[in-house]
Amino acid sequence: MDKVRIGSVGLGRLGLQHAENIAGRIQNAELVALCDVDKPKLEETAKRLAVRHQFTSFEELIACKDVDAVVLVSPSALHTKQIAAALNAGKHVFSEKPLGVNVAECKEAEKAVEAHPDKVFMLGFMRRFDESYKYAHDKVAAGEIGKPVLFRSYSQDPEKFIQGAIAFAPHSGGQFLDMAVHDIDLARWFTGSEPETVYAIGGCYAHPEFAASKDGDNVSCLMKFKNDCMVFLFAGRTAPHGYNVETEIIGTKGTLRIASVPQKNLVEVLDSHGVRKECSENFLERFDTAYVNEVQEFVNCIFNKRKPAVTVYDGTRVSEIAYTCKNAFETGELIRF
Amino acid sequence: MDKVRIGSVGLGRLGLQHAENIAGRIQNAELVALCDVDKPKLEETAKRLAVRHQFTSFEELIACKDVDAVVLVSPSALHTKQIAAALNAGKHVFSEKPLGVNVAECKEAEKAVEAHPDKVFMLGFMRRFDESYKYAHDKVAAGEIGKPVLFRSYSQDPEKFIQGAIAFAPHSGGQFLDMAVHDIDLARWFTGSEPETVYAIGGCYAHPEFAASKDGDNVSCLMKFKNDCMVFLFAGRTAPHGYNVETEIIGTKGTLRIASVPQKNLVEVLDSHGVRKECSENFLERFDTAYVNEVQEFVNCIFNKRKPAVTVYDGTRVSEIAYTCKNAFETGELIRF
Amino acid sequence: MDKVRIGSVGLGRLGLQHAENIAGRIQNAELVALCDVDKPKLEETAKRLAVRHQFTSFEELIACKDVDAVVLVSPSALHTKQIAAALNAGKHVFSEKPLGVNVAECKEAEKAVEAHPDKVFMLGFMRRFDESYKYAHDKVAAGEIGKPVLFRSYSQDPEKFIQGAIAFAPHSGGQFLDMAVHDIDLARWFTGSEPETVYAIGGCYAHPEFAASKDGDNVSCLMKFKNDCMVFLFAGRTAPHGYNVETEIIGTKGTLRIASVPQKNLVEVLDSHGVRKECSENFLERFDTAYVNEVQEFVNCIFNKRKPAVTVYDGTRVSEIAYTCKNAFETGELIRF
Amino acid sequence: MDKVRIGSVGLGRLGLQHAENIAGRIQNAELVALCDVDKPKLEETAKRLAVRHQFTSFEELIACKDVDAVVLVSPSALHTKQIAAALNAGKHVFSEKPLGVNVAECKEAEKAVEAHPDKVFMLGFMRRFDESYKYAHDKVAAGEIGKPVLFRSYSQDPEKFIQGAIAFAPHSGGQFLDMAVHDIDLARWFTGSEPETVYAIGGCYAHPEFAASKDGDNVSCLMKFKNDCMVFLFAGRTAPHGYNVETEIIGTKGTLRIASVPQKNLVEVLDSHGVRKECSENFLERFDTAYVNEVQEFVNCIFNKRKPAVTVYDGTRVSEIAYTCKNAFETGELIRF
Repeated sequence: MDKVRIGSVGLGRLGLQHAENIAGRIQNAELVALCDVDKPKLEETAKRLAVRHQFTSFEELIACKDVDAVVLVSPSALHTKQIAAALNAGKHVFSEKPLGVNVAECKEAEKAVEAHPDKVFMLGFMRRFDESYKYAHDKVAAGEIGKPVLFRSYSQDPEKFIQGAIAFAPHSGGQFLDMAVHDIDLARWFTGSEPETVYAIGGCYAHPEFAASKDGDNVSCLMKFKNDCMVFLFAGRTAPHGYNVETEIIGTKGTLRIASVPQKNLVEVLDSHGVRKECSENFLERFDTAYVNEVQEFVNCIFNKRKPAVTVYDGTRVSEIAYTCKNAFETGELIRF
Repeated sequence: MDKVRIGSVGLGRLGLQHAENIAGRIQNAELVALCDVDKPKLEETAKRLAVRHQFTSFEELIACKDVDAVVLVSPSALHTKQIAAALNAGKHVFSEKPLGVNVAECKEAEKAVEAHPDKVFMLGFMRRFDESYKYAHDKVAAGEIGKPVLFRSYSQDPEKFIQGAIAFAPHSGGQFLDMAVHDIDLARWFTGSEPETVYAIGGCYAHPEFAASKDGDNVSCLMKFKNDCMVFLFAGRTAPHGYNVETEIIGTKGTLRIASVPQKNLVEVLDSHGVRKECSENFLERFDTAYVNEVQEFVNCIFNKRKPAVTVYDGTRVSEIAYTCKNAFETGELIRF
Repeated sequence: MDKVRIGSVGLGRLGLQHAENIAGRIQNAELVALCDVDKPKLEETAKRLAVRHQFTSFEELIACKDVDAVVLVSPSALHTKQIAAALNAGKHVFSEKPLGVNVAECKEAEKAVEAHPDKVFMLGFMRRFDESYKYAHDKVAAGEIGKPVLFRSYSQDPEKFIQGAIAFAPHSGGQFLDMAVHDIDLARWFTGSEPETVYAIGGCYAHPEFAASKDGDNVSCLMKFKNDCMVFLFAGRTAPHGYNVETEIIGTKGTLRIASVPQKNLVEVLDSHGVRKECSENFLERFDTAYVNEVQEFVNCIFNKRKPAVTVYDGTRVSEIAYTCKNAFETGELIRF
Repeated sequence: MDKVRIGSVGLGRLGLQHAENIAGRIQNAELVALCDVDKPKLEETAKRLAVRHQFTSFEELIACKDVDAVVLVSPSALHTKQIAAALNAGKHVFSEKPLGVNVAECKEAEKAVEAHPDKVFMLGFMRRFDESYKYAHDKVAAGEIGKPVLFRSYSQDPEKFIQGAIAFAPHSGGQFLDMAVHDIDLARWFTGSEPETVYAIGGCYAHPEFAASKDGDNVSCLMKFKNDCMVFLFAGRTAPHGYNVETEIIGTKGTLRIASVPQKNLVEVLDSHGVRKECSENFLERFDTAYVNEVQEFVNCIFNKRKPAVTVYDGTRVSEIAYTCKNAFETGELIRF
């Protein structure tokens, strides 16, 4: 194989970013096909990125012989079926999270992946591919901070996107499924362990609209993991300063903090507001390189005939945990896994 | 009254610091008496600080007509009785925390204070008198960060003091009573609310010795407060970088962080370890000014015939909450207040 | 001697601060006299601080037998004469900088000090008594950063005080004399060396009014010191973020930065302006503790019959250097000392 | 044109990086040829990056019809001639700095560029393409910090590369030409002005070997620009903490600092050394994205038939200034441009 020929599905904000990345920032890959139901956007993007195939139908895309692998950035409800269909059509599959919209779907996805052991399947937990998270994980794995004591992780969307979040609330699954899944993935990845208990709280502090979906605008949970590590997660939608994803791992010998200041870049401003750093505005800005790195890893796996470290089972497990957190939040009870 | 004449009780590390502060850093006050069972230390200190009365007996101290007010930095088990005795002897009383070693004792202290409405009684929650905490509290009170969403507070002692902590473990009451009381006080002060539920976890990650006292070397709890504010507290004894007391208050309109880097001073070092700030080594260093400010406030209250904002009831309430946290930690159950 | 009885001269902003410090924050000292031409302010302050003597005449103050030492915070033009008169009257003398308004005056002050070897004389280079500067100096002295390569120091007043600075411009002596003297003192103290050459530039970037006094609103100079250390100083009057005094010492083995962010305290704010630290507003806020420490050292020297590390010759030397910088700035020429 | 077909010349560290970038991180470009005298490295790299042409002769490369543009990362002494030859052969040219090893050569390069107005010529001042520098420049251009008062820029190589620097010293041209050229470029770019005077100092603080080349291991200069802006540059080779490139622009309304902490990533470590950030180790790590962005801009210019903002005249001017700084350093005199 000279280059991995990729068909990318979905041209929303992240889909477009993935398409542009594959077109110009991924080695040994070629963006050969695009698929979206929005025909004008499809045509415009295909032209701009010099993509040779355009499809408004997913089935046609996976029937295309010129495509080796698909990247799924479609609506969450389609993921499970598209994963199975693409694998059955002989394609390698990279799918954005979630694996499925419930645990039963995740299990279906597992079966589809198990049925195609020769294909590469990878799930988009992009934070693992962020340079800072990777660097911190290497240190933890090397024992530099000793035994993990407390893992704390925040995911906060900016207040300025609140109208979109309110509109999407009935479909988001709630913050544990929509946002905290990334923190849950990190908690498992950094601690190498699994949760035993969870207590979850939160509420609608600024936007009562989330209550109708049994969600809050800000929520949190405290979990005890099997290796005794304490895990505290916080997810919010009302950050005034920007897109704030930060993680702290306190160990017996040291502590690591990742992005405790979600600085946009290396510029510091000294003005009438004091000495300040401006912040990342959204996930695309913050995880720009991580989105490239994860697809590069997918391509490298295909090339080198190896499997990614992130497995389909990680997707299922994270979903199970997120549903349990959601359940804990809704009932107000302490839940044991 | 020209100056408030103070007798200080107890010459341990903090007691000595209070004595030196009263002798030289408090306006309108005079250190006229010292009391400690260690006679050589008593004599040496009295001489060094030019203090005119020395007592090895607390009873004699409070019988001294030359004393207007006492500052209690004696062992915790003596606090309640000494508070009552000093008030009965007509003295104003400043007592270091705790008010008593159990809630019953706290209630006794309340009665003693209530019996002397003309006397100033103040409890040493020094963090409220730290410049940074005061500055942050002013901002919260002024509504600058909107409604409190998450209150997170850490108290971490340095690993280098661990042998002392292990030796003291059977008498400390555990970390919720020994350390987290300050964070509990701050949570109530910043949120203006009270806890409804608590879930507490932790363990012995580095030092199994704490298990014998049903304690951990690192513990945490998540509480829901009546105003819906989420409160996450963490207390640890194994910080490698120094004495780490930090607090974050996330509100609907802004977030404040106090001492998220427990920097010793304004010096930054660039060397083979990177760019770094050295950290406070202990509570005396970190809260040096706060210890002065709190006693100054005590003296000002006496002078101006007003009462401190921190009341005896705050002491009781904080103890009740800390005991509930301890109970939650020991049972592993979610507890509703 | 029981306590050093101090008379404080001048009740401007800094004078008032010194008076309050001596009254309440200095050990082994007593504020027994105040002197100022503003009678109402004198009376109000004397009453508030319970000071027993008040003088509108400096001569009467130094004639007072009840006074052991004077602290001079009077107008600069009076310093030299007051230093000599007070020493002649048998008082120990602490004087705010400058020693004199020209080098000839400084030499006179030297003679007065030399004529009274039994008296303590100290000049107010308060930065040496700031905890952060002291900490950094200890590290340099201990060889932790190797040989000094570059010493960089900034003194910036806030833009908000510009009207006062403009009004004072004709009398200030210019920024090298008015502000950079502190940086010059630090440069000598940190490097242990003296300047060989100086090139100075600057201008009126925002406020043309300074040109009338042959001054700029922002100026800088580069000096080569005898030990080869490069010294870059910057002095400005238009800082929008606050009072910014920062210093960097780059050595062959490490670099130290002091107050590169002039943060007000340990609070960090996260809001629509990003993540920010609010800044010190003026010298009284920034050097609050340093002003206490320097007078404490003066008192300790009197008590322990020793001499301060800062000598009268430091005052002369700093003035000579500042005048040379001023001359370099006014002529635009490279000057060799 | 479908894609710009690029031949890359020179496979040293930066050359290799450019080759890899063109192969995989640049849109609308294709790496079709490599040229280096080291045949094994040439073959290995060509194979690894799937490059179809390999040349050990520059003349053969530019004779190749399959090449649209060349990227020159060859030894500095070859730049001028290769720029002219490639342009004459009808290629677009991107050249790493310097334009030539003396001003006469730069003028030759100017003529070559002027003779080919239809070709894109671009010089590698990569810092202008760093996200942080671009962000800061946008703010300055938008007037956010008012009028520039002081421009300060540091370029420090890590001490750990000192042996290479010593070996290269006789050929480097000295630090003003080798390192400070980037700071000079930035000073002109940020201030929009040109120097009027320069005073330069420095020395061999740790490594006397540089004296033989009339260079220092650390040097600095202070320049006055025509718009009155003060410009202070520092270049060093002995940074213990890493690769430190930082810039500060103080304006009348605000100050910007770029990379004042040369942090490797967003990880903060809390351990026995304090709270610290690890630093970039070299230019390739620090300017990784800038190297991609600059070549992308070169390709975009070719595609869109426009000229880059960095011109050949910038290259000449920066060289002239650097030579003047070098002259000032060697003579110890103040030089007026």
